[in-house]
Amino acid sequence: MSSGGFHARQLTIVGLGLMGGSMALALKDYAEKVVGVDLDETTRQYALDQGIVSEATDDLKNGVKDADVVILCAPVRALISMLRNRIGSYLRSNTLLIDIGSTKDDICEAMGRLPIGIHAIGGHPMTGKESNGIDVSDADLYIDKPFVLCATRRTTPATRLRALALVEALGALPIEMESARHDRVVATISHLPYLLSVAMVATADSEAQVDEAVWHLAAGGFRDMSRLAGSDIRMMSDIISTNTQAIAVLLAQFRVQLALLEKMLIGRDEEQLTEALRPVREARLKWAQYYQRK
Amino acid sequence: MSSGGFHARQLTIVGLGLMGGSMALALKDYAEKVVGVDLDETTRQYALDQGIVSEATDDLKNGVKDADVVILCAPVRALISMLRNRIGSYLRSNTLLIDIGSTKDDICEAMGRLPIGIHAIGGHPMTGKESNGIDVSDADLYIDKPFVLCATRRTTPATRLRALALVEALGALPIEMESARHDRVVATISHLPYLLSVAMVATADSEAQVDEAVWHLAAGGFRDMSRLAGSDIRMMSDIISTNTQAIAVLLAQFRVQLALLEKMLIGRDEEQLTEALRPVREARLKWAQYYQRK
Repeated sequence: MSSGGFHARQLTIVGLGLMGGSMALALKDYAEKVVGVDLDETTRQYALDQGIVSEATDDLKNGVKDADVVILCAPVRALISMLRNRIGSYLRSNTLLIDIGSTKDDICEAMGRLPIGIHAIGGHPMTGKESNGIDVSDADLYIDKPFVLCATRRTTPATRLRALALVEALGALPIEMESARHDRVVATISHLPYLLSVAMVATADSEAQVDEAVWHLAAGGFRDMSRLAGSDIRMMSDIISTNTQAIAVLLAQFRVQLALLEKMLIGRDEEQLTEALRPVREARLKWAQYYQRK
Repeated sequence: MSSGGFHARQLTIVGLGLMGGSMALALKDYAEKVVGVDLDETTRQYALDQGIVSEATDDLKNGVKDADVVILCAPVRALISMLRNRIGSYLRSNTLLIDIGSTKDDICEAMGRLPIGIHAIGGHPMTGKESNGIDVSDADLYIDKPFVLCATRRTTPATRLRALALVEALGALPIEMESARHDRVVATISHLPYLLSVAMVATADSEAQVDEAVWHLAAGGFRDMSRLAGSDIRMMSDIISTNTQAIAVLLAQFRVQLALLEKMLIGRDEEQLTEALRPVREARLKWAQYYQRK
């Protein structure tokens, strides 16, 4: 795997969870020094003991001030707060600053207000695991996974090339798009599905309170449809709270689709119903084939 | 495994698909003769060649007239039509008649109008496979799966005991409930999830028409949530068309749940949002543990 020239003198990773720890492991051969910033002492000690980072601190300023590459791996709103309130004054000029937040518009907007000279670009690696701690860090986490890059007002042509080289060093697949477009796409494929799963389980739970057979008879279809409702609440509410507008648009579209199906079903217009179901089924099968080949 | 005394002189299975073929295989040791009724000649020939049935016919009357046990394994509306229009006059008195339709209220109502003396009871084995032909028939398909039994006006205490013995012979787990209750439960755990999956994929498909990145970035969560939208259309539209009232009730409840989530999200009432998400997540995790242990 060619690094495309990625190299850091000091790589600082802010937030040592699964994503940050995996980033450190995947990039350590490309950096002379890897520094981790995390508020949790146990996490810092674990990262040092396991050789995930070479230095660790709980002080953001000390962690980032000498870095030439900084990757922000904190939750979305912690990222936004860091970008708005503090980090701009800590960073050296020419530092490459990238994040891994699951929504991009607010983050990229905050990056755009950083001091001129900081090379800031939004990032969203589309990968993860069921659990989230540094103890499940994995150097291969990003390999062959899409890594969305969103330009900001602080993204120069050089920023873009450095970010692409970083993504290539991770073994990920760079996809460049505008931040608002990214947020609309993830509202479609991730946040809408999450809310549907939650509302469906809430409906079943309320039914089950009058008839326990709901839980006894639920099977494979329900298992798949309810899985997202079991996601980490703090993480999901952090993510969806920073993408409310796109989600509201998608919810409005979804309601129309659902109402159309209901109309045909209740109106007993079966020919129309099967004609509506067919292209949806085909779209799903086509996507599933594409996704399997990936 | 004890048969609980199940025995048939002539067991007739109407409809030789996955469910009917598997029924024949699972019960052949309990019947002196197994007759299959199917309109498709290739299917009949296959069933004979593979020893799934000992006799096969395309004539419903000839197939059932000498049977003491008849299992209807056709699609729901074909079943209803058979029950309303023909089969009553073909059956001998004291024949045990059971079906495997995925909705029960209309079927049980039609069974209740059969001639007195026919022992009719509704059945819904909660099992299946991705594909549906007789070529994937499996003697073990019903083992340890719930098999719902719904009494009809033609269910005597003896009918019930014979049906329970049949379910036991299959190795399935009998669950007795009233047909309207069954339909409400399956609307909750199966039909609502199907419609949500379809409306979600329809929404994504419409988004993808302006931005292909939707398909490129969709991943595991979308895969799970979209799987049901790939179900067989004829089968699903047959099923949901016979359960419109319960589905409409569930859709109304679902809409309320979704609207509550949207209100909290858009209103930026995050404490309320996480308080709403928490019990739903707990309900899902609790059910998933129960389901895994099964």
